Amino acid sequence: MAKEKKFVEAITSMEEDFAQWYTDVCIRADLIGYTSVKGCMAIKPAGYAIWENIQAELDRRFKETGVQNVYMPMLIPENLLNKESELVQGFAPEVAWVTHGGSEQLQERLCIRPTSETLFCDFYAKDIHSHRDLPKLYNQWCSVLRWEKTTRPFLRSREFLWQEGHTAHATAEEAEERTVMMLNVYADFLEEVLAIPVIKGRKTDKEKFAGAKYTYTVESLMHDGKALQSGTSHNFDDIFAQAYDVQYTDRDNTLKYVHQTSWGMTTRVIGALIMVHGDNSGLVLPPRIAPTQVMVIPIRQDAEGVMDAAQKARGALMAAGIRTGLDDSEKSPGWKFSEQEMRGIPVRVEMGPKDVAAGQAVLVRRDTREKTIVKIDELPSAAAGLLEQIQKDMFERAKAHRDAHTYDAVTYEEFCETVDKKPGFVRAMWCGDQACEEKIKADTTATSRCMPFEQIRLADTCVCCGKPAKHMVYWGKAY
Amino acid sequence: MAKEKKFVEAITSMEEDFAQWYTDVCIRADLIGYTSVKGCMAIKPAGYAIWENIQAELDRRFKETGVQNVYMPMLIPENLLNKESELVQGFAPEVAWVTHGGSEQLQERLCIRPTSETLFCDFYAKDIHSHRDLPKLYNQWCSVLRWEKTTRPFLRSREFLWQEGHTAHATAEEAEERTVMMLNVYADFLEEVLAIPVIKGRKTDKEKFAGAKYTYTVESLMHDGKALQSGTSHNFDDIFAQAYDVQYTDRDNTLKYVHQTSWGMTTRVIGALIMVHGDNSGLVLPPRIAPTQVMVIPIRQDAEGVMDAAQKARGALMAAGIRTGLDDSEKSPGWKFSEQEMRGIPVRVEMGPKDVAAGQAVLVRRDTREKTIVKIDELPSAAAGLLEQIQKDMFERAKAHRDAHTYDAVTYEEFCETVDKKPGFVRAMWCGDQACEEKIKADTTATSRCMPFEQIRLADTCVCCGKPAKHMVYWGKAY
Repeated sequence: MAKEKKFVEAITSMEEDFAQWYTDVCIRADLIGYTSVKGCMAIKPAGYAIWENIQAELDRRFKETGVQNVYMPMLIPENLLNKESELVQGFAPEVAWVTHGGSEQLQERLCIRPTSETLFCDFYAKDIHSHRDLPKLYNQWCSVLRWEKTTRPFLRSREFLWQEGHTAHATAEEAEERTVMMLNVYADFLEEVLAIPVIKGRKTDKEKFAGAKYTYTVESLMHDGKALQSGTSHNFDDIFAQAYDVQYTDRDNTLKYVHQTSWGMTTRVIGALIMVHGDNSGLVLPPRIAPTQVMVIPIRQDAEGVMDAAQKARGALMAAGIRTGLDDSEKSPGWKFSEQEMRGIPVRVEMGPKDVAAGQAVLVRRDTREKTIVKIDELPSAAAGLLEQIQKDMFERAKAHRDAHTYDAVTYEEFCETVDKKPGFVRAMWCGDQACEEKIKADTTATSRCMPFEQIRLADTCVCCGKPAKHMVYWGKAY
Repeated sequence: MAKEKKFVEAITSMEEDFAQWYTDVCIRADLIGYTSVKGCMAIKPAGYAIWENIQAELDRRFKETGVQNVYMPMLIPENLLNKESELVQGFAPEVAWVTHGGSEQLQERLCIRPTSETLFCDFYAKDIHSHRDLPKLYNQWCSVLRWEKTTRPFLRSREFLWQEGHTAHATAEEAEERTVMMLNVYADFLEEVLAIPVIKGRKTDKEKFAGAKYTYTVESLMHDGKALQSGTSHNFDDIFAQAYDVQYTDRDNTLKYVHQTSWGMTTRVIGALIMVHGDNSGLVLPPRIAPTQVMVIPIRQDAEGVMDAAQKARGALMAAGIRTGLDDSEKSPGWKFSEQEMRGIPVRVEMGPKDVAAGQAVLVRRDTREKTIVKIDELPSAAAGLLEQIQKDMFERAKAHRDAHTYDAVTYEEFCETVDKKPGFVRAMWCGDQACEEKIKADTTATSRCMPFEQIRLADTCVCCGKPAKHMVYWGKAY
C-alpha cells in the first residue's frame, strides 16, 4: 500500500483570492512547509536560499558602514525586561515564558527574546566605560519569538528570522545620523536588490516602536494594494540608556548617557518579494536575489547532442558568474517549464535538437515570457544582459504599479471612499493628533504608514478634523 | 565622577592555572562578555568573527556534498519530544520548558530545542513520499539550549551556536556512507583550517548519542592533556523513522522506513582553538581562520612617511587577498604588540622611520615570535608565504604535542598510573563490556573517547578485566 503521490494542482489565481494565491505560492514554490509546532513554519531549501542571499547582501552593506556581528543570549530574565516600561507594555502580551529548566521550577522566569534591546543595554552597561569605547555598532542574526494569535507564512509567524542592529553613540546627533543611515541601507537594498520601490519616512507616535523616540520605516506596496512595512530603524535617544544605566565617561571627565539606535529586517521581506513580483504562474524572483538565475532545460534530451550541448551551455553560463541550474530529470519539458516558472527562476534556456543543429539557444524571460533566440557563443553575454534588463524592468514595473495605486485625498469623504474603493496608498494631510489617526483607523481600517521624508503640501488642513495640517501622511491597509 | 578604567592586567599563566588562563584569554582577547542571563555568554565581535569564518568554511564544504540549508522551529511540543524514548531520557533532564504564551498558560508545554531530530523527523514524515524524494540532505545553523548546571565559555554554556545536519536516505548503506562522509568533512576542516589534529573513531554504546545506532566522533587533545570531542556524526538507521513513522514508497511500490543521520559542530571548537594553540600571551589563531591575518603597526607614527608607508603596506597586503588591519590608534607600539598577540593575529608588520628609510618592513610571527626583515616590494608575497608556513607549523606542533601525550597501557596498573600522572590520551584494549568502561571511569575519571578507525592490537586482553579484547580504545579525561 503505497502513499499517494499528490497531484500537482494549479494555484488559485490572485484575482480570485489573493490570500489563497499567496499561500499556494509559498507551498508550491517549495518555500515553506507546515510543522506540528503551532504558528511556526519550516523554511525549506528554496526559501532558505533566498534568505541566505538576503543575509549576504545586507551583511556586506552593514559591514561597509563599520557594523560588527555579535551574539547575545536568546533568553531574557523577567526583571531585565521590566526595566523599560514602554517596552514591557509593548511586548509582554506576546512573549513566551520559560518557567522550568529540566524538572526544576526556575526562581525567576525568562522570556524568549521578542527583540533584544534589553540584552544589548545590559551588555553595553557592562562593556562601555569611556568615550573611547564609542560608538558600538553591533548587529546579530537570529530568530525571535512573538506569541501571535493568527499567523501567515513569512508575514506573521510566532518565530521568525531577522537581523537586529543595536548601536550606542556619544551624542544624540550621531545616533540620529546612524538611524537614518541604516534606513537608507534598507531602502537601497530593497530597491537595488529586491526591485521593491519604497517610501521612506517616519512613523507617527502611535505606530512607533515601544520605547523609541523616533521610528523610521520603509513602506512598500503589494500587488493587492496593501502596504507592507519592510524595515524599520529606531532612534532611542537616551531613553533606554537611562532605564538600563548605560553611561560613559566623556572627554570632560563627566558621566553621560549613551544614545542608542536599533534597526531590523526580517524574513517578512520574502513575503514582500512574493506579493510585489509574483503572478498566477507562481514566484517571480529578481535576478540579483534569485538562488538560481538561469535554468537550462533540454528538449528531447535523448536526442543526439542535446544533453551535451545543455551541459556545455550550463558550464559557459556558470563560468560567466551566472547561478545556473540544469534540469535533466525525467519529467516532460512542459512540466519543467511549469516548475521553473513556479519557482520564479528569472530566465530559462530551452535547447532542443533543432537548436543544437542551428547552434543556438532559446532564452525565455520569466517576468514577460518574451523569447529571444541567440547564437550559442553569445549565450553567456546575452543571458547576463537579459538578467540586468529583467532586474531593471521588474523595479520599474513595481514602481509604476505603486504610483498608479497612490491616491491623494483632501476631504474626509474622498479619503474614506478612496480607502474603500481603491486599494493602495492614500496620501492626505494630518494635524498630528492621535485622535484623528484613531478615528481614521476605526472608520476605514487604514493606518498611517509613515510621514514621508519628501513632504508635499496637499492642503492646509487635516483630512479628518479640518484643523491646521502638520504632516503629509501615507495611509493604507497593511499586512 | 568618572567610571574607573580597568587596568589591563597580565593573564594567569597556563602552567599556574590552566582553567583560569583559559577564562582570561576568552575575556582579554575580547571573545566573550558575561551577561545577566545565568549560564549564557555574549559572543563579542572578535569571537563572532571566528565563528563566521568557521561557518563559511563548513558551509561551503557541506554544500559541495549536496547539502541544503533549511530552518526548523526552535520549539518542540512535549508530545513530539516524547515519541523516541531514548532521546527523551537523554535530553529531558536538561531542556528548558515554555509554559506560558503572553499571559495564558499553554495547553501543552514546549521545550526549546536541545537538538532537532524530532522536528526533522516530523517534517520528513510530511515531506517524504516516494523514493524520488530521497535523499534529503538538510542542515541548519541555529542556537540550541541545554540546561547545564556548570558552564564555561564556549565549552559548556546553556545556549550555544551550532549547525545540525539531518539527512534521510533510502538504504542503511547510504546512511552509513553519509555518516562517515560528514565525519571526514569535520576531520578535514579541523586539520586543514583549524590546524587541530584529530583521532577519528566510533563512540562506545555508553558514550553514543541518545537514540543513535552508531556515533562517530573526532577527538582532539588540548594543551593541558585533556580531550575534547570536536564534532560528531550519528547513524540512526531506521530507529527514529520507526518512532516518527517516516516512510517512503520504494520502486517496488512497498512502504519502507527511511534511514537517517545527524551531525553537528558547535562553538565549542572555538574553545579547542584556544586550548590547542594558545600561549601565555593569549590567543594564537591559525591563519586560515583568523579574522585578521596581518596587523600593520606603525612605530613613531608621527615621523615623516611612516603612516603613509603603513597605509600603503596595508593596501598592498589587502590587494594580495590577505585580511589586514592597521593599528593607527594613539597607544604605544608596545601596547599594540601586546594587543595583537593577545588577539592571536598570526603576523604583525612593524614599520618605523628606519624601516621606511631602508624601504623595508619587519614581519613578526605570532606563534614563534621569529622576525624577518623584507623589502617593502616583497611584503605581500613574503606575508602570504609566512601565513602558509605558520598554518603548517601550527598543525605539526599540535600533532607533535598530541603524539607526545599519547600513551599505551597493557596492564590495569599501568593504565591507572598513566591516567593519573601523564595528562593525555591513553590507548588500551577493551573487551567491549560496559562494566569495564564504568569501572575505569569510577577508578580514574577517564572516559572512552573513541574506538579509532585505525585499530592497533596492543594486547590480546582487556586492560581492565583480562577477558579477550575486542577493540583498541582511546581513553582520557575530557572537557
